[in-house]
Amino acid sequence: MAVPRTLPTDESRALLDLTRDLTAREIAPRAAPDEADGRFPREVFATLGAAGLLSLPYAEEYGGGAQPYEVYLQVLEELAAGWLAVGLGVSVHTLACHPLATFGTPEQRAAHLPAMLGGELLGAYCLSEPHSGSDAAALSTKAAADADGYTLTGTKAWITHGGVADFYTVLARTSPEGARGISAFLVDARTPGLAAAAPEHKMGMRSSPTAQIHLDGARVAAERRIGAEGQGFSIALAALDCGRLGIAACATGVAQAALDVAADYAQDRTQFGGPIADKQGIRFMLADMATAIEAGRALYLAAARLRDAGLPFGRQAAMAKLFCTDTAMRVTVDAVQILGGYGYTTDFPAERYMREAKCLQIVEGTNQIQRMVIARDLLRKG
Amino acid sequence: MAVPRTLPTDESRALLDLTRDLTAREIAPRAAPDEADGRFPREVFATLGAAGLLSLPYAEEYGGGAQPYEVYLQVLEELAAGWLAVGLGVSVHTLACHPLATFGTPEQRAAHLPAMLGGELLGAYCLSEPHSGSDAAALSTKAAADADGYTLTGTKAWITHGGVADFYTVLARTSPEGARGISAFLVDARTPGLAAAAPEHKMGMRSSPTAQIHLDGARVAAERRIGAEGQGFSIALAALDCGRLGIAACATGVAQAALDVAADYAQDRTQFGGPIADKQGIRFMLADMATAIEAGRALYLAAARLRDAGLPFGRQAAMAKLFCTDTAMRVTVDAVQILGGYGYTTDFPAERYMREAKCLQIVEGTNQIQRMVIARDLLRKG
Amino acid sequence: MAVPRTLPTDESRALLDLTRDLTAREIAPRAAPDEADGRFPREVFATLGAAGLLSLPYAEEYGGGAQPYEVYLQVLEELAAGWLAVGLGVSVHTLACHPLATFGTPEQRAAHLPAMLGGELLGAYCLSEPHSGSDAAALSTKAAADADGYTLTGTKAWITHGGVADFYTVLARTSPEGARGISAFLVDARTPGLAAAAPEHKMGMRSSPTAQIHLDGARVAAERRIGAEGQGFSIALAALDCGRLGIAACATGVAQAALDVAADYAQDRTQFGGPIADKQGIRFMLADMATAIEAGRALYLAAARLRDAGLPFGRQAAMAKLFCTDTAMRVTVDAVQILGGYGYTTDFPAERYMREAKCLQIVEGTNQIQRMVIARDLLRKG
Amino acid sequence: MAVPRTLPTDESRALLDLTRDLTAREIAPRAAPDEADGRFPREVFATLGAAGLLSLPYAEEYGGGAQPYEVYLQVLEELAAGWLAVGLGVSVHTLACHPLATFGTPEQRAAHLPAMLGGELLGAYCLSEPHSGSDAAALSTKAAADADGYTLTGTKAWITHGGVADFYTVLARTSPEGARGISAFLVDARTPGLAAAAPEHKMGMRSSPTAQIHLDGARVAAERRIGAEGQGFSIALAALDCGRLGIAACATGVAQAALDVAADYAQDRTQFGGPIADKQGIRFMLADMATAIEAGRALYLAAARLRDAGLPFGRQAAMAKLFCTDTAMRVTVDAVQILGGYGYTTDFPAERYMREAKCLQIVEGTNQIQRMVIARDLLRKG
Repeated sequence: MAVPRTLPTDESRALLDLTRDLTAREIAPRAAPDEADGRFPREVFATLGAAGLLSLPYAEEYGGGAQPYEVYLQVLEELAAGWLAVGLGVSVHTLACHPLATFGTPEQRAAHLPAMLGGELLGAYCLSEPHSGSDAAALSTKAAADADGYTLTGTKAWITHGGVADFYTVLARTSPEGARGISAFLVDARTPGLAAAAPEHKMGMRSSPTAQIHLDGARVAAERRIGAEGQGFSIALAALDCGRLGIAACATGVAQAALDVAADYAQDRTQFGGPIADKQGIRFMLADMATAIEAGRALYLAAARLRDAGLPFGRQAAMAKLFCTDTAMRVTVDAVQILGGYGYTTDFPAERYMREAKCLQIVEGTNQIQRMVIARDLLRKG
Repeated sequence: MAVPRTLPTDESRALLDLTRDLTAREIAPRAAPDEADGRFPREVFATLGAAGLLSLPYAEEYGGGAQPYEVYLQVLEELAAGWLAVGLGVSVHTLACHPLATFGTPEQRAAHLPAMLGGELLGAYCLSEPHSGSDAAALSTKAAADADGYTLTGTKAWITHGGVADFYTVLARTSPEGARGISAFLVDARTPGLAAAAPEHKMGMRSSPTAQIHLDGARVAAERRIGAEGQGFSIALAALDCGRLGIAACATGVAQAALDVAADYAQDRTQFGGPIADKQGIRFMLADMATAIEAGRALYLAAARLRDAGLPFGRQAAMAKLFCTDTAMRVTVDAVQILGGYGYTTDFPAERYMREAKCLQIVEGTNQIQRMVIARDLLRKG
Repeated sequence: MAVPRTLPTDESRALLDLTRDLTAREIAPRAAPDEADGRFPREVFATLGAAGLLSLPYAEEYGGGAQPYEVYLQVLEELAAGWLAVGLGVSVHTLACHPLATFGTPEQRAAHLPAMLGGELLGAYCLSEPHSGSDAAALSTKAAADADGYTLTGTKAWITHGGVADFYTVLARTSPEGARGISAFLVDARTPGLAAAAPEHKMGMRSSPTAQIHLDGARVAAERRIGAEGQGFSIALAALDCGRLGIAACATGVAQAALDVAADYAQDRTQFGGPIADKQGIRFMLADMATAIEAGRALYLAAARLRDAGLPFGRQAAMAKLFCTDTAMRVTVDAVQILGGYGYTTDFPAERYMREAKCLQIVEGTNQIQRMVIARDLLRKG
Repeated sequence: MAVPRTLPTDESRALLDLTRDLTAREIAPRAAPDEADGRFPREVFATLGAAGLLSLPYAEEYGGGAQPYEVYLQVLEELAAGWLAVGLGVSVHTLACHPLATFGTPEQRAAHLPAMLGGELLGAYCLSEPHSGSDAAALSTKAAADADGYTLTGTKAWITHGGVADFYTVLARTSPEGARGISAFLVDARTPGLAAAAPEHKMGMRSSPTAQIHLDGARVAAERRIGAEGQGFSIALAALDCGRLGIAACATGVAQAALDVAADYAQDRTQFGGPIADKQGIRFMLADMATAIEAGRALYLAAARLRDAGLPFGRQAAMAKLFCTDTAMRVTVDAVQILGGYGYTTDFPAERYMREAKCLQIVEGTNQIQRMVIARDLLRKG
C-alpha cells in the first residue's frame, strides 16, 4: 500500500512519484529472477542516474539534485522496498561519493562528481578489512607516499559493489598513528594492482556483489587524495553517519514491503471460515509490525531533518540504523510467519525480505557498534 | 539531561524554557512527598493556568495559546518528566476541554472556555463505565431528555480528577441505538445528584485521584449538551485521538526521566574498579533505552504534525500511544534494574517512574485497544 | 560443545554417544554441500535405520528401540544439531509411523512396522491441504468407500518427504461430518493415482523435499485403514502431540549448534585488541542465548517425561514447540549477528541455521496454532 | 489453579499438599493487609518451622527434612505464590543456614542447626555492602582476630530480615587478599555492637524488612567462625548457587499467581459481548505467559535435579534465576494489563505481584551478574 508521506515541496512529491513508478515498472519485477541468478543489475543504476536518482543529496553545480536528506532517504526507502540490492546500492554509491563531495577541492569535484552523480561511474566504499571490521581505526592497508603520489597495498573486505564498481573510495594508512594516520583516496577501478576477489557467497543480497579488494602496489596520484593526510578517519566517519541513515531508510523499505505482503496475504487467506486477517492474533501482529515501522520511519526522518538543519545528528543516525534494522529483522520474520508455509517458499517475496533484513543489522557498523556509538554520546556529560 | 528539541518558533522555544524552569522549581520537587501522601496538587494547576500552560492547543480568542500540537505535546512531555500526575492531569484537562472547544457553539465556548483554559476550572472526562471500558460504545449511563434539559443517571468509572474536578465532560446515552445513541454534556461538578466515590487505591499515581462518578438524577440544562444528540461518540473519539497523543508524550517524559536517572547513577556507581557505566552490558541497556525513547518521541511528533497539518492522524496517534507507553514500561523496569537495590527503594524516583509507566499502558484505551484501532485502519483496503 | 545431559540408563547414554559419533562422521559434514545442491540424503536414513535410530520410541516386538521419549528426543536434538534435514526427517518418519504403531491392529503392525522402523521404508505424513493448513479439520481429500477398499481423491500439501517417501500416512474424509468424518490410511507410494508434484522452492531445508501429493483415484485396500472410520482426526492429533515434541527437540539442536558456532567465533575473532568474547555486550548475548536454549531443553524434556509416565502432555508439547522454535529463531538471528559479515556468508553454518529455524516456527502447527492449543487447555476450568 | 507437578515420592506429594493448604489458609489471606501495613509476619515462620517447612533440604539428624531440592523448591514456589515475603523469607533463611549446614563442624551444627531449622531462630545472610553489591569480593567489613575470637566492624547492606533476624551469617574480611581474605561467621543478633538501621522504603515487599546491619566492634567467638579463615568467599558462593534456585522458584510462584489471576479475570470480564478470554489477543498473551512460566519451572527443576544428583549446577542455577525472574517481571506486567484499570488498583493482587517481581530481578545477584556467571562458565573451553 502507498505509504502516506509528508514531503516538503511539490518537487519532492514528484520525485517520490517518479521513484514509485520506476520501482514498480523497472526494479521490483526483476528482483526475484536476478537474485535467483545472482545477477548484478548494472543497467538499473544507469537508468537511475539518467532519472536523476543517483545524485539527490548533492549540489546542483556538479549535477546533484540538491535535495534534503529528508527527501533523499524516502526515495531510498521506496527503492529498497522494491529491491534492496538497488536501494542499498544507491546508498553505497552515495556513501562512496560523500568524501569527494564534502571534502574534495572544487577541482576534484568538477573533475569527477558529474560522472559519479550521473550514473556513468558506480562507486564503492572501502573501509573494512579482514581483521578490522568493527574496529575500523585499526586498518592496516598502507598508502606509501612518494614524489608524485601513493602506492597502496593491502586488502579491503566486505566491499559492496566490489568487482563491479568504477571507482573505490579507499581509506588507507599514511602513517602509523592509529586513527590519525588514515587518509582517503579516490581510486579508479582500472588501476593496475587493484583486483577484486571472487564475490562472497551470501545468505541473501546475491545480486549485490560483496568482495574483497586487493591492492597490490596500486598507484594513486596525489591529486586523488581527498582531504589532508591524516584526515581520512574523520572523513570516513562523516560519510558513515550519512550512510547509516541510508541503511535505516532501506531497512524501513524492506520492512514495509514485508508488512504489505503479509497484510495482503492475511486478507486473502481463508482458514476457520474467514480471512486470517479477522483473527485478533494476526491483527495484533500486523499492528505491532506497522507501529515499529512507523516509529522507525519517524526516527530516521527526525535524524535527517537534524542533518538538513546543519545540527549534530550522529547519535540519532546510529539510533535510526539500530532501530530500523532491528525492526526490519523482526518484521520480516513475522511476515514469513503470517504467510505460513507459503512464506517459507520463494513463491512470495517474504523469505527474500527476511534474508535481506539480516544483512542490514550488520553493514555499516553492526548494531553492536551502533550501541557503542549511542552510549558514548549519551554518557558525555555536559 | 536537556533533550535537544526541534521547535518551530522562538515563541515555542520560550514556552519550553518556561516549562522546564517551572517544572524544575515547582513541580518535580513536590512529586515524591505529595505522592507519598496521596495529595492532589490543585494549586499547581492554578499556576500552570496562570502561566498559560493549560490552554496551549486552543484558540486565542477564548484564552488559548494557539500552539500546534507539536509544541503542546513537548510541553506535556517536560511536565510528565517532572511529575506524571501533573503531566497527565494537563492532558486529561485538555481532553475534557476538547469537545467544547471543537464542537461547542460560539456561545458555549465564550461562556465556559476562558475559565477552563485559564485554570480556574479543572476538568475531567467521563467516558468509561464499570462494565464498558474497552468497549466504550456499550455505555449505559442514561440522559433522559425533557422540555428544558436532561436527567443523567448512571455510573462513570476510572475518572481521572474524579472528585477534584470542577466540570465533567460526560458521555451519556440519549437513545438506545449503540454508538449512535450517545451524546456529550458539560456537567458542573456542583450539580445536585452528581457525587464522586472514594478514590481508587492504586499502585501509583496516588496524587492523581481516580474515582467513580455517580450520576443520580443529575439535571443538565439543554444548553450544556455539546454537539447534536447522537453525535457524542464521534465527539468522544475525536477527543480520544488527541488524548492518545497526550499519553504518548507523557510516557516519553517518564521514560526520559528514568533514563536520565539511570545514566547518572551508572556514571556515579562504582563496582569492579570503575563506574558501572563503563560496562558494555550497562551501556547497551542505556543505548537501547535511549533509542526506544527517541523513536517514540519522533513518532508522536510525526503524528502531531499530521494533526497540525489537518491530515488524518488517528492511526498514528494510536501507534504513538502504544509504542511510547510500551517503551516507558520497558525503560522504567530497566532503569530500576540499573540502580539495583537502590532502584527498588523510594530514595530514587526510578521505582515511581515504573509504577507510573504501568498506568499509561492502560489509560485512554488499553494498548490492546490501540492494536485493534491500528489493525482496523491498516486493513481498510483502498 | 558437548551438552551435559541427564539420561536414565547406560543404554541411553550409549545411544547418545552413538548418535553424536554418527552425526559428526556421517551427517554434519554433508549438510552444507547437500543443502547447496538440494540433494535428499536417502542413504543417511538407511544408515540410521541400520543403527536402530529410526525406531527409538516404538515397541521392541516390531523392531523398535523401546526408548522413552526423554531419550528419543535427545537423539533427535543431536541429529538436528548436525543437520536439520536429517533430524526433522527422523521426526517426520516417526510421526508417519505413529498412527500405525499406536492405533494399528497387531496384524497391520506386524505387516508393516518392521520395515518402517528398520529404515527400508521411509514415511511421510499427509494432513495439510492447500486450503486447510492451520484448520486441519477442514480437509477435503475424499476417501470414497466401496466393497473392497477406498478411492482417494484430493491434494495434500506441505508434505515433508513428498516424492521420496515409500509410504504416506494420509488423512482423508470418509464422511462430511467435519472432524468426525476423517479417517487415516497407510498408502504405498507406488499406488497408481498417487503422484508427487515438483518440490517447493524454499528458503532453507532444500535437502528435505516438501511437495504436494496428488491423489487421483488412488486405491487403498480396506486393511490399510488405520483405526476406525471417523477416528482419523483424533489419530492425527495424537500423532501431532508427539510430532511437536520432535520439532521442539530439533529446534533445540539447531539453536545449540548456532550458539556453539557463535561462542567459538567470539573466542577466535579479535577486535579492539582482544577476542570479542571479552566484550560484555557479546557475553550477555551469549548468556541469553544459552539460557533460552537450556530452558527450552528442560521444557521439552519435562513434557516428554509426562508422556513417558502416561500423563497428559498435549499442552506441554505445544508449549515446547512454541518456546523452542521461537528460541531457535531468535538465537540463530543473534548467532549470525555475532559472526558479523562472516555470519552472512555460507562459509559458516550460522546463516543455514537461521534459515532452518524459520521453518520450525511454521511446521506441525504454526506457533499461532500452538498458542490456540495452549490457551484452550489453560482456560478449561476445573 | 493447581499446577500439575511431578514429584518423586508420596512423602513429597504430601508435603506439597500440606504447603498448599497452609498457604491458602494462613499465608495468602494475610498478604494484602500485612503488606499495606509493612508488618513482618514473624509468627508465620514459627508456624512453618513447626510444620517442618523451614528445614526441608537439610539433614534429618539436625532436624532437617532431608528433601531433595526438587521438592524443597516446589514448596518454595507454592509459598511465594501465596505471599512472596514468606517464600523469599524461607529462601533467605535457608540460605543463611547453608554455610553452617554445609561447612560447619558437627559440633557447630549440633549446637545451632536444630533451633534454626525448627523456626525458633530466624536467619539473615550478610554479604552485600553499600559499596560492594555486584562485586561481592570487594567487601570491606573487617573481622579482626585476637586470642579468643574476632571483632567485626563495618556495614552490611540490603539485608533481608535485617532487624528481625535472630542470627546473621556474616561474611567479613580477615585479611586483605581480595576474595581469599574473606571468612564466614554465625553472629547472634543480640551481640553488642550489632545494630540494624531503619528498614529501607521499598516499592514492594514491605512486609519483608531490608536493612543495613552496622557492626561496630561486635565480638564473635572463634567457634562461631564457619569453615577456615579465608574460605568465606567460596562458602558464600556455594550458598548463593542454592539461593539462586530459591529465587527462581519464588519467581515462578509469583508469575503463576499472576497468570492465575489474569486467566480468572479474563474469563469473568465481559466486553464486546463476551468474556475477554474469548479474544485471541488476550488468549495469546495468556499462552505466552503460561509457556514462559512452564519453561522456567522446568529449568529450575532441571538445575535442582543436577544438584540433587551431586553434579555441577552453578551455570544452570544462574540461568534459572535469570530466566524465571525476567519471566516473572514480564508476566506480572502483562497480568496487570489484562486486568486493565482494575489491575492497577490494590483491589486485585496483580499490582502487588508486579512490584514483587521487580525485586527478584535484583536480589542475590542482579540479572546482569547472572549473565556474567553464565558467560564465564560457557566460554570456559574444554
